[in-house]
Amino acid sequence: MTSSPRLPGLPEVEPLDQTLRDHLQHIIDTKTKPPGSLGRLETLARQMGLIQRTTHPAVTRPAMIVFAGDHGVAEEGVSPYPQAVTAQMVANFLAGGAAINALSRVAGIELEVVNAGIATPLPSAEGLVDIPVAAGTRNFAHEAAMSRDQALAAMQAGAARVRHHAALGTNVIGFGEMGIANTSAAACLMSRLCGVPIDECVGRGTGLDNAGLARKRDVLASALAHHPVSTDPLDVLATFGGFEIAMMAGAYLAAAEARMTILVDGFIASSALLIADAFAPSVREYCVFAHASNEAGHRRMLDHFGALPLLSLDMRLGEGTGAALAVPLLRAAVAFVNEMASFESAGVANRDA
Amino acid sequence: MTSSPRLPGLPEVEPLDQTLRDHLQHIIDTKTKPPGSLGRLETLARQMGLIQRTTHPAVTRPAMIVFAGDHGVAEEGVSPYPQAVTAQMVANFLAGGAAINALSRVAGIELEVVNAGIATPLPSAEGLVDIPVAAGTRNFAHEAAMSRDQALAAMQAGAARVRHHAALGTNVIGFGEMGIANTSAAACLMSRLCGVPIDECVGRGTGLDNAGLARKRDVLASALAHHPVSTDPLDVLATFGGFEIAMMAGAYLAAAEARMTILVDGFIASSALLIADAFAPSVREYCVFAHASNEAGHRRMLDHFGALPLLSLDMRLGEGTGAALAVPLLRAAVAFVNEMASFESAGVANRDA
Repeated sequence: MTSSPRLPGLPEVEPLDQTLRDHLQHIIDTKTKPPGSLGRLETLARQMGLIQRTTHPAVTRPAMIVFAGDHGVAEEGVSPYPQAVTAQMVANFLAGGAAINALSRVAGIELEVVNAGIATPLPSAEGLVDIPVAAGTRNFAHEAAMSRDQALAAMQAGAARVRHHAALGTNVIGFGEMGIANTSAAACLMSRLCGVPIDECVGRGTGLDNAGLARKRDVLASALAHHPVSTDPLDVLATFGGFEIAMMAGAYLAAAEARMTILVDGFIASSALLIADAFAPSVREYCVFAHASNEAGHRRMLDHFGALPLLSLDMRLGEGTGAALAVPLLRAAVAFVNEMASFESAGVANRDA
Repeated sequence: MTSSPRLPGLPEVEPLDQTLRDHLQHIIDTKTKPPGSLGRLETLARQMGLIQRTTHPAVTRPAMIVFAGDHGVAEEGVSPYPQAVTAQMVANFLAGGAAINALSRVAGIELEVVNAGIATPLPSAEGLVDIPVAAGTRNFAHEAAMSRDQALAAMQAGAARVRHHAALGTNVIGFGEMGIANTSAAACLMSRLCGVPIDECVGRGTGLDNAGLARKRDVLASALAHHPVSTDPLDVLATFGGFEIAMMAGAYLAAAEARMTILVDGFIASSALLIADAFAPSVREYCVFAHASNEAGHRRMLDHFGALPLLSLDMRLGEGTGAALAVPLLRAAVAFVNEMASFESAGVANRDA
């Protein structure tokens, strides 16, 4: 990768330190099992050991931050749900009734909800991190969604949330999102940053029918044609992004800086990673791609990262739900590497003995 | 399916009661998420509700039984590991140092280890369920692995272990296995019961090289040619099976009879399910196929069951490790169905509102 733009106030991401690689691999290979037979758990354990710079990796205070924001482009009718649902779902998160609440509780994950920029006024609610950049983005069908300053401020705010959790001991983190019309924003980010035609990026989102999908595709194709072509990540983010996506992009960078293992959720979350990756390509070395979303375009985005997702469960909800489901797999990976006996310690004959 | 043989003392499996199907689907569809967006978690929740005959399914005292047994065919050199490793690994299970120990602990699963018929004398160890049918099977390259009476006795013993856990409240169960050369037994069971040529059933097991794989293939092809062709499941089990496979087959039937959700592990565990399924095809309605093993032949066996495995993590260890990893997904499925708000209760606008 070419060297990336440096912007003031954004976290610095170091390439993954490979010092312990051989040592970790030796530990993994001498556990009482045929070499390689734990498959992806073995690569997960090695990656977590490298990230944490230890032969005894751990999952400590896993956290999920759900960033919510509204999108001006919703007024083009690109989603079957009204924009008010963003605020209503945030109220649902705060009341504990959404999917990400249930999945976080059952997996022992700390859940934080951030108002990154919701259009509808929210009832005051305990537990909300209320740091909106603005009351929703502008409609990128006609004008840039946000200013470059807003995009940068949002990235910095997302990074600050991660630092908060780092100070509390979190070493595994996932990011979720809520924002009516945000698959439209993500599809445009993908088209620009991956250089892929919009037809390969656009999907049904929360459940568009064929006519709705065709309309969404036309709206996004026009918007891409309307704005000057740029691959500068801050420009692309400001033109098409959402505040929740921008905060998430900054959050990825801060999580890698803090040497956390990062669980990447679905289509929107991966689009935010495209931004972070354009600033600091080493960020992907800290990432575990949790699942393959059913949203069209996500597989193509995973290919862009050379990523093999852990789970493929036909999900397409967002909120971080796919990332939450991967936390038990990380716990399993560290459990085997920390707790299993070696052939020698267990007195088990190795192969061809 | 044709009606299946009835044998005395084997559990009776009823077809899955579908009474609550529409009710469960309505509950799932009115949760605050786009319909279907939780993918496989939704079908899991529905299946568990049907099995448990409730709209509030639960995961209660999940258990894993690892059956261990030795195979006479090991003397043909079909595994790179010596037969003594079966007993050594059982000692490792009992000392807590194997993969299934680590994965069961981290997932909160009760683990039981059963000596179904190990050849090497075991040191007495606390916690072992020591009920061997014999000190390993005979070599099926030359003679039937066991008698029909032994096969039936093993199935009944496996069923009894499940009833023990049912009495303690277990409603989710997985079965694992340990037995040097048991991929050879499983490949022959598969070939006979699925009517598939041995070349499509045989794989590298714990890690045979190309020469070893060719030898294993030749040994199994000769064995299949040596024994009369039968599709009677007790005959096939007695001819090629292992005591751990036979106990597991009985365990499946008892678990379905007790209306447990059954987590099916990899290649060996699926071969035991072939036996159970031949006796009572309804057993598969209680099964969740936990993972796709990397052992050649497992995908083909999954196709036989029309099964979509939950996980595909390049694992090929056995011991029940793939099944153990699926327990958190079952917990997530029941969590969303029990804990999520509905659109109405949360005051969230539904689509096209």
